[in-house]
Amino acid sequence: MQALHIIKIGGNVIDNSENLHRFLKDFTALEGAKILVHGGGKVATQIGESMGIEAQMVDGRRITDIDTLRIVTMVYAGLINKNIVAQLQCYGTNAIGLTGADGDFIRAKKRPVKTIDYGFVGDINDDSINPANISKLIDAGFSPVFCALTHDGEGQMLNTNADTIASALALALSGLYETTLVYCFEKKGVLMDVDDDDSLIREINPERYEQLKAEKIIHSGMLPKLDNAFTAISCGVKAVIIGHSDDLGNLKNEQGFGTRLSK
Amino acid sequence: MQALHIIKIGGNVIDNSENLHRFLKDFTALEGAKILVHGGGKVATQIGESMGIEAQMVDGRRITDIDTLRIVTMVYAGLINKNIVAQLQCYGTNAIGLTGADGDFIRAKKRPVKTIDYGFVGDINDDSINPANISKLIDAGFSPVFCALTHDGEGQMLNTNADTIASALALALSGLYETTLVYCFEKKGVLMDVDDDDSLIREINPERYEQLKAEKIIHSGMLPKLDNAFTAISCGVKAVIIGHSDDLGNLKNEQGFGTRLSK
Repeated sequence: MQALHIIKIGGNVIDNSENLHRFLKDFTALEGAKILVHGGGKVATQIGESMGIEAQMVDGRRITDIDTLRIVTMVYAGLINKNIVAQLQCYGTNAIGLTGADGDFIRAKKRPVKTIDYGFVGDINDDSINPANISKLIDAGFSPVFCALTHDGEGQMLNTNADTIASALALALSGLYETTLVYCFEKKGVLMDVDDDDSLIREINPERYEQLKAEKIIHSGMLPKLDNAFTAISCGVKAVIIGHSDDLGNLKNEQGFGTRLSK
Repeated sequence: MQALHIIKIGGNVIDNSENLHRFLKDFTALEGAKILVHGGGKVATQIGESMGIEAQMVDGRRITDIDTLRIVTMVYAGLINKNIVAQLQCYGTNAIGLTGADGDFIRAKKRPVKTIDYGFVGDINDDSINPANISKLIDAGFSPVFCALTHDGEGQMLNTNADTIASALALALSGLYETTLVYCFEKKGVLMDVDDDDSLIREINPERYEQLKAEKIIHSGMLPKLDNAFTAISCGVKAVIIGHSDDLGNLKNEQGFGTRLSK
């Protein structure tokens, strides 16, 4: 099977144009089929504020009311996505910027209201992805660039977490490609000591993961990330790599980039 | 050759959600390969104003300064384009929303400063279009939906007139498809008497056009539109049809929709 990299970046890359440009150069240098998934960044909040629309938070979680949905549709699918695409074209990646509505690639369900009404938030699982349609773009030589928006199939755009989109894409496409999922974040990877970048753990397999959890070296915030990663791996994703966006250029070197999780 | 319809809509459709939904249903009902090109509408101006950014006009023409470019990138490529795509998906068209940066489909040149600096406005000709890349999407069963944005190939998004994009697409794709270019506007078509919708002229060929000009039945604002249309036809476009967006459902009936310009 052909190799496919699915790389997710977040606000720490998008909010800094120097970091973003370096990352997009490294993304271009990566050989083979690839998909970029990007989150939002501070610009959505800033633009919302300049329009007099405050972010609505309940229990520390952002609520996507209709005004917020309009703003994220403008900022994620318009401003951020198209500037990334134009820059990638300049560097030589034949990028094509997408939401889940385009090509019916990712169809979500509006989150049901229980105690909190999250508004226009879409939940997805691996059935939400249309791998056959996405593979038409990849096989035609395009690099899809997804922002964190989906649709419900009934005309409604929805806001969906970018990490979740990246993971669902990797799972759904692992039947057609040998998929590697790469999460870029603000750390070098999984660290033995969270304050020491030199304590990077290069490789973790399921046994080592159980050990690291038992020794309480991996705890709190990293647990759901790694649990999800190992679930993806057990469902067919070849590897999940977690590392710093600045280091993506080292991905092609064996053991050069972040922490590699695999069977 | 396979038939391809390229249909352009403007603000009069986009600004009215009832008109837009009827149009998108009619677009879906149209059989065969098709491309939609849409302009902006009032919402870009409204959102600019809500952010405290006034439209800059010089000699009645809008100037695309950097703030205006940000707004049109958000509104055209984000808000309008993705809502059209989500709605088309609901009706059953496998739409994919695009700017000229995506897939390197339309590469423009920033307009040189002479007496007026138009800012980030991109001029195109038929060399600007990448028909091979666009045909990959069409042949894969997607319906491209273009907004009025292009790029310069060096990382810069540019604002380009939607009529011009539609016409350049029709010309460039006429080597691969039997292209018909459809302009939707606020009139039934070319009228013998501009105040009488029943005076619609159904067909105009180049000889009839010369006659109508000589008789001063066609004058002022219609002249550049029709001149451009007949240039496109002489360069390989099969026909150009001008009609009201509300009537698109009649396009499949012979002589049912607007004014048909052809050889």
